[in-house]
Amino acid sequence: MITLTYRIETPGSIETLAAKIASDQSTGTFVALPGETEELKARVAARVLAIRHLPDAERPSIPDDSNGPFRRADVDIGFPFDAIGTDLSALMTIAIGGTYSIKGLTGIRVVDMKLPEDFRGAHPGPQFGVAGSRRLTGVTDRPIIGTIVKPALGLRPHETAAMVAELIAAGVDFIKDDEKLMSPAYSPLSERVKAIMPLILDHEQKTGKKVMYAFGISHADPDEMMRNHDMVAKAGGNCAVVNINSIGFGGMTFLRKRSRLVLHAHRNGWDILTRHPSLGMDFKVWQQFWRLLGVDQFQINGIASKYWEPDDSFVESFKAVTTPIFSPKDCALPVAGSGQWGGQAPETYARTGRTVDLLYLCGGGIVSHPDGPGAGVRAVQQAWQAAVDGIPLADFALSHPELARSIEKFGDGKAA
Amino acid sequence: MITLTYRIETPGSIETLAAKIASDQSTGTFVALPGETEELKARVAARVLAIRHLPDAERPSIPDDSNGPFRRADVDIGFPFDAIGTDLSALMTIAIGGTYSIKGLTGIRVVDMKLPEDFRGAHPGPQFGVAGSRRLTGVTDRPIIGTIVKPALGLRPHETAAMVAELIAAGVDFIKDDEKLMSPAYSPLSERVKAIMPLILDHEQKTGKKVMYAFGISHADPDEMMRNHDMVAKAGGNCAVVNINSIGFGGMTFLRKRSRLVLHAHRNGWDILTRHPSLGMDFKVWQQFWRLLGVDQFQINGIASKYWEPDDSFVESFKAVTTPIFSPKDCALPVAGSGQWGGQAPETYARTGRTVDLLYLCGGGIVSHPDGPGAGVRAVQQAWQAAVDGIPLADFALSHPELARSIEKFGDGKAA
Repeated sequence: MITLTYRIETPGSIETLAAKIASDQSTGTFVALPGETEELKARVAARVLAIRHLPDAERPSIPDDSNGPFRRADVDIGFPFDAIGTDLSALMTIAIGGTYSIKGLTGIRVVDMKLPEDFRGAHPGPQFGVAGSRRLTGVTDRPIIGTIVKPALGLRPHETAAMVAELIAAGVDFIKDDEKLMSPAYSPLSERVKAIMPLILDHEQKTGKKVMYAFGISHADPDEMMRNHDMVAKAGGNCAVVNINSIGFGGMTFLRKRSRLVLHAHRNGWDILTRHPSLGMDFKVWQQFWRLLGVDQFQINGIASKYWEPDDSFVESFKAVTTPIFSPKDCALPVAGSGQWGGQAPETYARTGRTVDLLYLCGGGIVSHPDGPGAGVRAVQQAWQAAVDGIPLADFALSHPELARSIEKFGDGKAA
Repeated sequence: MITLTYRIETPGSIETLAAKIASDQSTGTFVALPGETEELKARVAARVLAIRHLPDAERPSIPDDSNGPFRRADVDIGFPFDAIGTDLSALMTIAIGGTYSIKGLTGIRVVDMKLPEDFRGAHPGPQFGVAGSRRLTGVTDRPIIGTIVKPALGLRPHETAAMVAELIAAGVDFIKDDEKLMSPAYSPLSERVKAIMPLILDHEQKTGKKVMYAFGISHADPDEMMRNHDMVAKAGGNCAVVNINSIGFGGMTFLRKRSRLVLHAHRNGWDILTRHPSLGMDFKVWQQFWRLLGVDQFQINGIASKYWEPDDSFVESFKAVTTPIFSPKDCALPVAGSGQWGGQAPETYARTGRTVDLLYLCGGGIVSHPDGPGAGVRAVQQAWQAAVDGIPLADFALSHPELARSIEKFGDGKAA
């Protein structure tokens, strides 16, 4: 049994709407059908398992002329495994996609999904995940500290490489292309790889430390994306940024089957599926698909991010990607990013189970440190050390000048 | 220049938010950056081209604690072509996906997208479209009349085949698997193809009429989907249902490059991107991506559908898929479906430019005709003849008993 939980809102009857979802998404249509036998229903019909009523909504979440009250409830619906199978496009179509079209609701949000044991082993899951990311970066006992080449768009390959050289020298563990940078004419991926990888390999040769560089390989065409992948892998790269929403399940599946790279997922576009609290779906549900498909590192914003997402939502997302679906191996490495600098380290650490198993991604927060990116990296490392040791940042900064300078620049909400 | 129009809503300044979208989606981040030079900006920076203010919203579309007023405007933002290029995953990421994450808005909906000439010829577009669908079905001067095997789920292949035999005999032009039916254990696609295609080919042999059968070939794995495609093509089939949202750009691109089948798109899942009028995107925008990627036939609901979608929205969608992006060849065949029977023919015809270039899809509306599917098909053909001839259905039914019987059964909103 595949169990979905829908948070529904309706000016009508919750029970009727719940039954309609179960019927429409399996055997039913708008009239009684001769072939809709009891035997067939037993084979594939979805069933309402539980209804938990919630307080009424004052106003409809989707504008609606009906008079209230707008009743709300969490409804569990069970789909027989055989009605869907393990194909994730079937699961998305039947259990989620179709439900959004149903008449008579003023809100619907998929808030939970429980997959049965039949799914165990049916999908590749992450190839590298937390352990692989640690092994490849050589970072063992603290967060992997990463940064993003900025400006997001517009630098030519030699300009990007100049910045990368500075970031490598700064001691960062991970660098990525902005997710918006793929292979535009002014910076073809092939040129970027040629300009950047020698710097990474040279630094590895000299120091033994291989910086993980995530190249933007996304393309709507899986064949092109694989060419991009191969180009990076052949040049000695070990990571790629993938815009999962923009390539879809097909792109992701195709890539994962053939991939030798750590797949760093950016979820741009996802926000519209979750930003309205009564519509769409919880990240908790959505991320299960992408982890099963093979995401290794999952961007989930961070504390006090520059985006709309509230901190509580980030904390929930962190918990989601680090909670096994079937096994700890299917967890992704959480990537805290967006408006990050060392300042959020104590709260991030405190609210995510006091773990250092994360990639902590600071763009401007490292690059724009007043004493340069090297000081920026050290400041972030110091902030995490303080967080883990339970020392207030201001105290730790007394003996750590880089942290002190970053607090001067980014503190008191200046980075938000 | 790629131009997007965003309908934005904010308790703050429209001008500030518009500038923020343009900046965040190209060169900017949360702090000033050393590399963000004027030269770079000229190369890739997005610019606000126009702001058209709209009446304030009384309440925020996304719940928000701010006091109103919630200002609204349509904002045109231009992206230099070179900042994005022709890759549709880059276009989706930069111009749409990323904008949904921006802080300080209470509504954002992408309502228009104008692609420059640089995109002409950059994508395959439909392989068959309207002309190919007409050629393959042999239907020239009226809508292609189609139906859907129901119940949606649960029939075993021999049961499906028995129903298909009846539908073929009924004189239908087109039959499809319900979009929720792909290849579950109780009805593997291979078995369905084996059971159904001989009926199609036998009927063609006898009558010269080849019914177009759209098999559900969707799969999250493009390799599997191609195996499904090949199975259908090899058996003499000529059409496939594709759940475009569930396979994504990657699946669609991969398939289209290799396809010999008419690709019939079901858009399940799309509703959540458009159902709230202040969020997501207009179908007009979204469908451009899928047509460029190669959709031949586009399901867009219909008049008085069983889903949430209002008739006006259907009419807009019909106009969208039949309006050339660069050429009439990039138009998809509109597929009116959901709760359809002959009763909607007059209004459909009147409101969509008096064209018969459509696939008119009736599930229960044909199968559940009181005198059987054959009468159901004839009733729908009669309704369309009446619509085109400008004769009220009730009058036409006086001399057309099948139509009369369908009005008895489905008329007066009974089908809704």
